[in-house]
Amino acid sequence: MTNLTLALDAMGGDYGPRITVPAALQALRLYSFLNFYLVGNKTDIEKYLSQVESDVLRRIEIIHTTEVVTMSDRPAHALRNRKQSSMRLAIELVRDGKAQACLSAGNTGALMAMSKVLLKTLPGIDRPALVSCLPAVNKTPVYLLDLGANVSCCSETLFQFAVMGSVLCEAVDKNRSPKVALLNVGIEEIKGNDQVQQAGQLLQQSPQINYTGFIEGNDLFSGRVDVIVCDGFVGNITLKTSEGIARLLVHQLEKGLTKGFFVRLMAKMIAPRINSVLNQMNPDHYNGASLIGLRGIVVKSHGSADESAYLQAISLAVTEAQRRLPQMIEERLESILLDINN
Amino acid sequence: MTNLTLALDAMGGDYGPRITVPAALQALRLYSFLNFYLVGNKTDIEKYLSQVESDVLRRIEIIHTTEVVTMSDRPAHALRNRKQSSMRLAIELVRDGKAQACLSAGNTGALMAMSKVLLKTLPGIDRPALVSCLPAVNKTPVYLLDLGANVSCCSETLFQFAVMGSVLCEAVDKNRSPKVALLNVGIEEIKGNDQVQQAGQLLQQSPQINYTGFIEGNDLFSGRVDVIVCDGFVGNITLKTSEGIARLLVHQLEKGLTKGFFVRLMAKMIAPRINSVLNQMNPDHYNGASLIGLRGIVVKSHGSADESAYLQAISLAVTEAQRRLPQMIEERLESILLDINN
Repeated sequence: MTNLTLALDAMGGDYGPRITVPAALQALRLYSFLNFYLVGNKTDIEKYLSQVESDVLRRIEIIHTTEVVTMSDRPAHALRNRKQSSMRLAIELVRDGKAQACLSAGNTGALMAMSKVLLKTLPGIDRPALVSCLPAVNKTPVYLLDLGANVSCCSETLFQFAVMGSVLCEAVDKNRSPKVALLNVGIEEIKGNDQVQQAGQLLQQSPQINYTGFIEGNDLFSGRVDVIVCDGFVGNITLKTSEGIARLLVHQLEKGLTKGFFVRLMAKMIAPRINSVLNQMNPDHYNGASLIGLRGIVVKSHGSADESAYLQAISLAVTEAQRRLPQMIEERLESILLDINN
Repeated sequence: MTNLTLALDAMGGDYGPRITVPAALQALRLYSFLNFYLVGNKTDIEKYLSQVESDVLRRIEIIHTTEVVTMSDRPAHALRNRKQSSMRLAIELVRDGKAQACLSAGNTGALMAMSKVLLKTLPGIDRPALVSCLPAVNKTPVYLLDLGANVSCCSETLFQFAVMGSVLCEAVDKNRSPKVALLNVGIEEIKGNDQVQQAGQLLQQSPQINYTGFIEGNDLFSGRVDVIVCDGFVGNITLKTSEGIARLLVHQLEKGLTKGFFVRLMAKMIAPRINSVLNQMNPDHYNGASLIGLRGIVVKSHGSADESAYLQAISLAVTEAQRRLPQMIEERLESILLDINN
């Protein structure tokens, strides 16, 4: 296996190095071909590196900086003023070819703005999109984009997201003709706002995209399509809502099954079966969203991710780097966009 | 109890009179003070009225019409061309004071457009909003609006929705100071699109509204606030997504608990407990959304509602008529809007 190097914004997220460093150590033990740049406060990072075996330690390089992007930094402010931040230095390592992917659990808007400026978008793409797989699908994954990188999108941007989502699904899942849908308030052609309606018309004119029309919120998890496209405002709220209701149901069920001796006993006896279903729905098992449409790999972790969820995001970055995702997207995009423009 | 009369668009919804008429009959047996206008095709409606006891039958009056609003009618088209439709005639019965509320499971856009033109909005309100309670809350209900009547909203409209939602919660739940939040992609002030940010500023300047800031999708079901406001595009997708994931989880759990003799046996023994949790999350138990901001009561049922879900929507219309909701909203609105304009 060819060696891979990831750049980690070790300071990002709600817990910083307390989560990011132990997760990186787990990944190093899991993947012998992996190396890390850990970008952030050296003292804080080193706290978690004592008593680590030398084979793992020698695959880590710390890039020291004390500056961080805060969660309340506006993207433009972060871009102008956080030039020595752990987030920016991690992205620069990708830009300079020193790392094959970078990963942050920090401010999404800042990550998006910095990535766009430092790595640039692919030809034909105006704005990168944040994409992730939906939790709890029964079959092959369903990609949802955009998840919050772009709170307002014109129809042309939604169209580009659809093309990128389709190419991503082709590239990663070897799905030759992914079904693509636009998220809307109804499936009838007359439904929705101007952006969605016009994006639908653009997609209907694209022979290389298997566009299947509009899809409603209650059909997100049915596996009827492979790629679902919406603006970042809708996507972010949709994803978080799904997570919210899944957590609530799990909580209610756990509560319902712990009252009364008999119920508790029975529930314990079939707990493995119940847990396997609940785990399948656990959003933490799906941590890691990718900023696609860039000339480099940037993965975003949930800010509240725990060690195992953060490890999931690292694994996603590893997979994308191994498959050279930006190059794959670029090649397919070129052919699709040529076809559309002719 | 004072007599109440509801006007039913008997033809609306996926199943028409097959669901609407039996549900109306159930309601008549449940509420002795209730009367119905059943608006629609007389022959179709009468099919479900044979062998009905005379005490119930005499509280029904059929208004015959063969015209219907279809699901693919654009609102403007329905308004101009469906003048004898069951939906329109039902609304006219409210306008003319013959019924205290009307109910339809038909085309939401057409229902909204016709209601607005025929019933008019309350003073200070530009557009009615579709509002419903969220499923699966542990405590007092959480109102979400708009649910799809307005796919694009300016900040002023979002602000009016917040005011109406707050007044609704005061009126129905006797909550003296309902907590109101705007649905957004983050809780930080810098987050979101222009409409949400400006609506937030308007709400901060309204002393009579207990505005608590932004709320994220994963917090929808936490009971942290009483009223959540968003545009109809986001609200519709959010509600349907919640329903989709709740149904999926229920399905997965049922599937997981029917494999293997031992698991099936144990599951059966604690089935009541599991079912009580699942029922709590069943969207059908929360059927019925109200178009508020009008000078009359209009309730919208899910198009796919079954008899018991449709009965829920009828009960909602009964409650609102008993409480004279439009009058209550109008009185409180006047005071709040006066306060803001001064």
